[in-house]
Amino acid sequence: VRAAMAGWARAVRGLLLDVSGVLYDSGADGGVPIAGSAEAVRRIKESGLRLRFCTNETQATRENFVKKLRGLGFDISVAEVTAPAPAACSILKERGLRPHLLVHDDLIPEFAEIDKTNPNCVVIGDAAENFTYANLNEAFRVLIGMEKPVLISLGTGRYYKETDGLKLDVGAYMKALEYACDVQAEVVGKPAKRFFESALKEMGVPPEQAIMIGDDIVSDVGGAQRCGMRALQVRTGKYRPSDENHPDVKPDAYVNNLAEAVDIILQEL
Amino acid sequence: VRAAMAGWARAVRGLLLDVSGVLYDSGADGGVPIAGSAEAVRRIKESGLRLRFCTNETQATRENFVKKLRGLGFDISVAEVTAPAPAACSILKERGLRPHLLVHDDLIPEFAEIDKTNPNCVVIGDAAENFTYANLNEAFRVLIGMEKPVLISLGTGRYYKETDGLKLDVGAYMKALEYACDVQAEVVGKPAKRFFESALKEMGVPPEQAIMIGDDIVSDVGGAQRCGMRALQVRTGKYRPSDENHPDVKPDAYVNNLAEAVDIILQEL
Repeated sequence: VRAAMAGWARAVRGLLLDVSGVLYDSGADGGVPIAGSAEAVRRIKESGLRLRFCTNETQATRENFVKKLRGLGFDISVAEVTAPAPAACSILKERGLRPHLLVHDDLIPEFAEIDKTNPNCVVIGDAAENFTYANLNEAFRVLIGMEKPVLISLGTGRYYKETDGLKLDVGAYMKALEYACDVQAEVVGKPAKRFFESALKEMGVPPEQAIMIGDDIVSDVGGAQRCGMRALQVRTGKYRPSDENHPDVKPDAYVNNLAEAVDIILQEL
Repeated sequence: VRAAMAGWARAVRGLLLDVSGVLYDSGADGGVPIAGSAEAVRRIKESGLRLRFCTNETQATRENFVKKLRGLGFDISVAEVTAPAPAACSILKERGLRPHLLVHDDLIPEFAEIDKTNPNCVVIGDAAENFTYANLNEAFRVLIGMEKPVLISLGTGRYYKETDGLKLDVGAYMKALEYACDVQAEVVGKPAKRFFESALKEMGVPPEQAIMIGDDIVSDVGGAQRCGMRALQVRTGKYRPSDENHPDVKPDAYVNNLAEAVDIILQEL
């Protein structure tokens, strides 16, 4: 690993960290930290490297998400988090879009300042229990009633694991609406290029001086590399050995976990 | 229209009729017959032409579907109907597949004789109110748990209209499961070639001597033409004027309704 990173790791000025599967594993009672990750975050901050958390989390406001992580021992604040809902709000304001929301109840406060009357687009997130037959039909009717349907999707995830089993993620429902309305969703969140670019801008570091560290080979690694960043895949979270044979995406290096990544990067500096 | 059909209509020996949108318009209290269609069915039968009803209906057993149509004045029997569920049952038996069913409650009796223990495939139909978050996750878990997921979809419809508004059809949910499991569904029903072929076989007429009459430009007209049949589009049911500019499919002729189609065909004979 050190050999793979020698040469370029020393040019690094900022790190983008995925959260779920890198800092902690989510679960029933809030989840459990991944060994060494809380200490690794502290070491990054002490090193003077810039740091930003880049997540596709859409089941909670950033406030609640950060509160949970602080409870698990992480030094993290709302201002350090790039997440899909606030990014979507910027786009909605910029383009004068008034959303019909098909999202998790706990995400709704993120859209408090957005005009939602007489909707001219649909925003879909990981709505979980809100993915009812009635709610999907309602979102569909709003879309199909537009001359040119606008569908904004907070991520493209296929599924995720919870303690009581696998759950369909937002990407599956996005595909259902895309097909029914013959429209292509605009994706806000990883792996969208614009989303990584806004995280880099907020961190104040150009892509060639940044490293993305994540557990998702496509969303984290592939997405970051397409923006001109280096990207490491951790062998925690949703990592599977078969990822190492992915047909399209090859990380710049593999690390066992965040702690190992930080060890190597700090030694190279 | 007569000019368009002159020459080939006289070689016809059998007619395949779509049902919803050709014989009747479905709706809250069972639907209403389309003017002249009941009489047209009687005239086909008197003419000696072979006749078969070819439908993608999956919200009821054929028994109940036929009972409803007889109540609307149509001369139709179960033995004359080609529908997706019985076609799926043949495939399940042929390949030793044991389905997990995600279908409408009223369709379940069609699968009475099929072994459903320890499922090794998922069959999805227009499940309507059964498309709950829990049921979709369950079907997904069955699929993703297979080494090679087998998904059989009873049709590919995008949406349909009911008296209380538009509803997402089976095709949208099929796409959600396809995406989540990275699998391609096997479609049973129109426009699948095999489905039309079984209808032709049951009617005992080769494709070049059969005409399909339907209201769906893609499923009815396009599907039948790919099997070597001629196909007419009626201007009833879900027909829209924009269908006449469809980029891929061009019917052999347009007719205002089934009655007009039968008038012309019987005159040509």
